[in-house]
Amino acid sequence: MRRESIAFIGAGVMGRSMAEHLLSAGYPLFLYSRTRSKAEPLLAKGAVWRDSPAEAASEADVAISMVGYPQDVETVYLGESGILKSLRKGALAIDMTTSSPLLAKRIAEAGAANGIGILDAPVSGGDSGAREARLSIMVGGEREHFDRALPILEIMGKNIVYQGAAGAGQHTKMCNQIAIAGGMVAIAESLAYAKSAGLDPETVLKSISAGAAGSWSMSNLVPRALQGDFEPGFYVKHFIKDMGIAIESASEMGLELPGLAMAKRLYDELAEKGNGNLGTQALFQRCLSDG
Amino acid sequence: MRRESIAFIGAGVMGRSMAEHLLSAGYPLFLYSRTRSKAEPLLAKGAVWRDSPAEAASEADVAISMVGYPQDVETVYLGESGILKSLRKGALAIDMTTSSPLLAKRIAEAGAANGIGILDAPVSGGDSGAREARLSIMVGGEREHFDRALPILEIMGKNIVYQGAAGAGQHTKMCNQIAIAGGMVAIAESLAYAKSAGLDPETVLKSISAGAAGSWSMSNLVPRALQGDFEPGFYVKHFIKDMGIAIESASEMGLELPGLAMAKRLYDELAEKGNGNLGTQALFQRCLSDG
Repeated sequence: MRRESIAFIGAGVMGRSMAEHLLSAGYPLFLYSRTRSKAEPLLAKGAVWRDSPAEAASEADVAISMVGYPQDVETVYLGESGILKSLRKGALAIDMTTSSPLLAKRIAEAGAANGIGILDAPVSGGDSGAREARLSIMVGGEREHFDRALPILEIMGKNIVYQGAAGAGQHTKMCNQIAIAGGMVAIAESLAYAKSAGLDPETVLKSISAGAAGSWSMSNLVPRALQGDFEPGFYVKHFIKDMGIAIESASEMGLELPGLAMAKRLYDELAEKGNGNLGTQALFQRCLSDG
Repeated sequence: MRRESIAFIGAGVMGRSMAEHLLSAGYPLFLYSRTRSKAEPLLAKGAVWRDSPAEAASEADVAISMVGYPQDVETVYLGESGILKSLRKGALAIDMTTSSPLLAKRIAEAGAANGIGILDAPVSGGDSGAREARLSIMVGGEREHFDRALPILEIMGKNIVYQGAAGAGQHTKMCNQIAIAGGMVAIAESLAYAKSAGLDPETVLKSISAGAAGSWSMSNLVPRALQGDFEPGFYVKHFIKDMGIAIESASEMGLELPGLAMAKRLYDELAEKGNGNLGTQALFQRCLSDG
């Protein structure tokens, strides 16, 4: 079977690992990233450099984007050198950036008008999930496009779920971030209480982390914070971006989420104090430190 | 080895299972509960009825209480027919009710003044944890009393952790409830968002429950709510009681916990609508129902 050729847009921490898996699986890969130096390791492995998203996409059957912010997604798809200008009819484009559900719908409509299939397929699992090809991928768009994309997505992830029409992938990612955000606040309050009460947080975890209060965040992020490790598994600044999208998207649907708003405020404060480049477990720092 | 004789106060859903394990292990057991009919199954298994906490405790080496509210604990320990009036010097009393940390300290002081050892040892794990003797037990008090109590606690639970001085067990249980409370709000907001966005909550769970958003509550309580099962694993009314104790205790320490306060408000609303006897997953009902 001939492998479809892929245009890959973005060579950040996540994108680099994902593109590398595609190269290893034998997919021809045209690459564009805003910062060329980040692309070098992939070029060394056989990716072919192109000078714009449109140029990368012009020869490709499938385009995949993994960039930073919704405005970057908009530029990559709808901008002057955007891929919708150059993808051929019958091509497929998959945006794996965590981005706005509304923008995903706009792009899907623009794609459909040009005979181009569009999927929104954000991921969870972080750096390590990308590196180990075990991302969870949440997909929105038309089912036939999902079916076509599946063999490619399976090279990058493990838990690949079709969530519904265009935007549904992004909406699902927002559900994920909302649950995480409120959960982080809950743990922070629990730790703040423990500290006030003079308890040892590590001993408290022994009592509570395996039961009904247990969560991925409690088991994975609190121990890091307890060891003074605030290295980013997931950056505070990226989490703030995602919560911002979720709040905006909820507000477009007339939905108020006070717990999410509270989480966003606490993380905004962290970032304002210069901690945007720490991992999300930095929220626990104040609850654990002495004095 | 002679088994110490036990006075057991309380024969509710939790207490009944716990007392039964002690009987099965061969401990002589004097029993008092406010409602005698609840005690009958235990009397049939060899427990000996006594007409007040004080009478039950007068012949016992160790007293264990598992009652409802802090005011019940206060009555059982410090009331006119309370156990501190009748326990002999050198006896040990263990309160396993989820109750006020400050009250636990008061009782410990009163006990010490009479030469009686006191532990606060609330549990988590619910009905099923009690039935299957795999409760998590969080213990506060003096270490020597903990060591003495351990063989008895091991008959009722699996994860038994010494948390520190008198009140530390109750404080740890509050940490547990605070983490659960905020986590439930986070999940409710995530589900409310999913509903607004037209997603299928069950499919969303497939994408998010195994990753960084995952938690015990998400994996165990959301599926029940999705099946329309609102039977109490843990009662709304009891959760409200616990959150009330946590808020009061935090406030005594000068600590504000806005996430916990929000959770308490939402659960208060549920109870005001007559749902106090449902399980805590009733919080998700509105986020899942159509229309």
